Amino acid sequence: MQSFHPPKRTLMGPGPSDVPRRVLQALARPTIGHLDPAFVGMMDEVKIMLRQAFCTDNALTFPISAPGSAGMECCFANLVEPDDEVIICINGVFGGRMKENVERMGGIAHVVEDAWGTPVDPNKVRAAFVQHPKAKILAFVHAETSTGVRSDAKTLCAIAREFGALSLVDAVTSLGGIELQVDAWGIDAIYSGSQKCLSCPPGLSPVSFSKRAAEVIASRTHKVRSWFLDLSLVMAYWQGDGARTYHHTAPVNAMVGLHEGLIMLHEEGLQNAWVRHGLMHEHLKAGLENLGLRFVVEEQYRLPQLNAVQFPASVQDEAKVRRHLLEQHNLEIGAGLGALAGKVWRIGLMGASACEENIEICLSALEASIKQCGQTTAID
Amino acid sequence: MQSFHPPKRTLMGPGPSDVPRRVLQALARPTIGHLDPAFVGMMDEVKIMLRQAFCTDNALTFPISAPGSAGMECCFANLVEPDDEVIICINGVFGGRMKENVERMGGIAHVVEDAWGTPVDPNKVRAAFVQHPKAKILAFVHAETSTGVRSDAKTLCAIAREFGALSLVDAVTSLGGIELQVDAWGIDAIYSGSQKCLSCPPGLSPVSFSKRAAEVIASRTHKVRSWFLDLSLVMAYWQGDGARTYHHTAPVNAMVGLHEGLIMLHEEGLQNAWVRHGLMHEHLKAGLENLGLRFVVEEQYRLPQLNAVQFPASVQDEAKVRRHLLEQHNLEIGAGLGALAGKVWRIGLMGASACEENIEICLSALEASIKQCGQTTAID
Repeated sequence: MQSFHPPKRTLMGPGPSDVPRRVLQALARPTIGHLDPAFVGMMDEVKIMLRQAFCTDNALTFPISAPGSAGMECCFANLVEPDDEVIICINGVFGGRMKENVERMGGIAHVVEDAWGTPVDPNKVRAAFVQHPKAKILAFVHAETSTGVRSDAKTLCAIAREFGALSLVDAVTSLGGIELQVDAWGIDAIYSGSQKCLSCPPGLSPVSFSKRAAEVIASRTHKVRSWFLDLSLVMAYWQGDGARTYHHTAPVNAMVGLHEGLIMLHEEGLQNAWVRHGLMHEHLKAGLENLGLRFVVEEQYRLPQLNAVQFPASVQDEAKVRRHLLEQHNLEIGAGLGALAGKVWRIGLMGASACEENIEICLSALEASIKQCGQTTAID
Repeated sequence: MQSFHPPKRTLMGPGPSDVPRRVLQALARPTIGHLDPAFVGMMDEVKIMLRQAFCTDNALTFPISAPGSAGMECCFANLVEPDDEVIICINGVFGGRMKENVERMGGIAHVVEDAWGTPVDPNKVRAAFVQHPKAKILAFVHAETSTGVRSDAKTLCAIAREFGALSLVDAVTSLGGIELQVDAWGIDAIYSGSQKCLSCPPGLSPVSFSKRAAEVIASRTHKVRSWFLDLSLVMAYWQGDGARTYHHTAPVNAMVGLHEGLIMLHEEGLQNAWVRHGLMHEHLKAGLENLGLRFVVEEQYRLPQLNAVQFPASVQDEAKVRRHLLEQHNLEIGAGLGALAGKVWRIGLMGASACEENIEICLSALEASIKQCGQTTAID
């Protein structure tokens, strides 16, 4: 076996996105102890910067020591008790995963379905609450990574509040890429991932819980169905006064990487980052349409950072094109997922990947690969 | 906020251990996609090298994308179904954590207790099986990080097998440091951590499951109480033939670090690593005894890689000494944990930290700090 030297890819799939050199270098700083006062001080800064990124004052804001799927599980494991009713909105892969989470925690999922490629319909959510007035939680995906759709988080959270329920939001792909206002929109529980618009390597999942959510967790009658993700234990490490209590060993180097990524976001400015994602999307969109690629999602619901597109009829074997992009152009774009597998490509513009240079690489590589692999060219 | 530049510590606590420059550099290589064929090829090598480290042919051997606590939870979540009986051996902090895991998965824990600082007593385990003949699993900690005790894993697993039960072993601190024979000893499920004797940063948890264990998992009647750790889903990513199915986004850079750490273990040779840990322990032991520090654990049960010692009477404020070691000598040693908090120090000799240079640093720093902080010197 030999040391692994990865090819230098341009990452324009659904995540991970390109990781800036500064973040990579931060990962390689010497490992120190997870209870070292120097590390604990850095953790406090991570918490402060995550609050800024989430637009929240929530005390309970920190990164889970595992990928976004574990952040999702942390939210459901801590908020759902056996027989709790939860309204789950499914309009793509990740809503379906939420339903699995509810059921594995012993809860009852009431599903609100919308077509893949369309946003969650607030009217259906309202109807679901009327039908299930005891529902404790409304859970939905803000930015569906499987389809590239943005749902109206503000409106959905207001409906949850109106019916006395908590809101639980998947922001894996939205944090740092589009407007996301945890406090102003009244989001009670939210999770994200390090490897999307924050441009860090995968492996950490920022979460935040409102005071209301924290009170619900504190008054649980059943133990959380996870020791690793039980917030009453995890927080003794993340929120101790001065002396932190050992819970698990935090991924020290990954945390230093996230710290650096958050500093970069802070330097750019959160709103500037949102604007950049929007601008880059406009540039990419024009180029993709030129190539004959059609967007799956109606313009008003599109995520700038995740562009799901149908390929032109000349493409008979879409996997061949993606392989060609990777092998000949070192460009990664995403395949379709779930119901859209084989039918679309997902082109990410997340974090550091949302830049002019990447867009140029992507458009010229796509043009060449489609031409090479297809029977006719896309622009014929 | 400014970029975080950690102090350069010498890590001789209960983990993380010193991470070699080669591993740190591997972390900083460019991030690539978790489904990239180049990454998938590297994953296959990680699996092969982990099998070598565990001394097993188990197909189901790979790193969980989260720290050791999640590896523990993966084992219990997949093997324990509601109302299953599990014999749990508690002789330190981590056995207690196992009990928590069983209960949160709906199982019934029958506890075999031994005093902290002593190994699990096989006679008590045998008696527990006689009393609870339906017990499905025997779970114990091979190397108790909280006390520095090695239990006789081979004998304990043989007892489990005799009573038709599966064995589930915590090898967080033992893998790569002392003899550990998954196949020869008949271990059915085992988990470890990246940050101990493998000398990688914390954040990954190597696990391995025997064919017997895999069959038990495949014939479950209840869904696993975790979506993130459900092996039937995780393995579609780690074991797919060629095309891997997306489950979660693996911590790509951390995996590259683990790959490098495993190469280094392979270069040294597993048995050589075991021998080195033993030799370094002998050197450290002589020095510690010279300083008037007394071992908590009887010689025959001691772990070479985790030395729990009582400090001399001259030390009135043990935390002050540890602070002095950290601030004046950049040396981290571990505090006591649980029942031993405030009563012992835990001096780690794990992975790259198990070397002459560290031992010299440790002994001279300890001597100076004890002298500085104590009323009289330790060797008076």
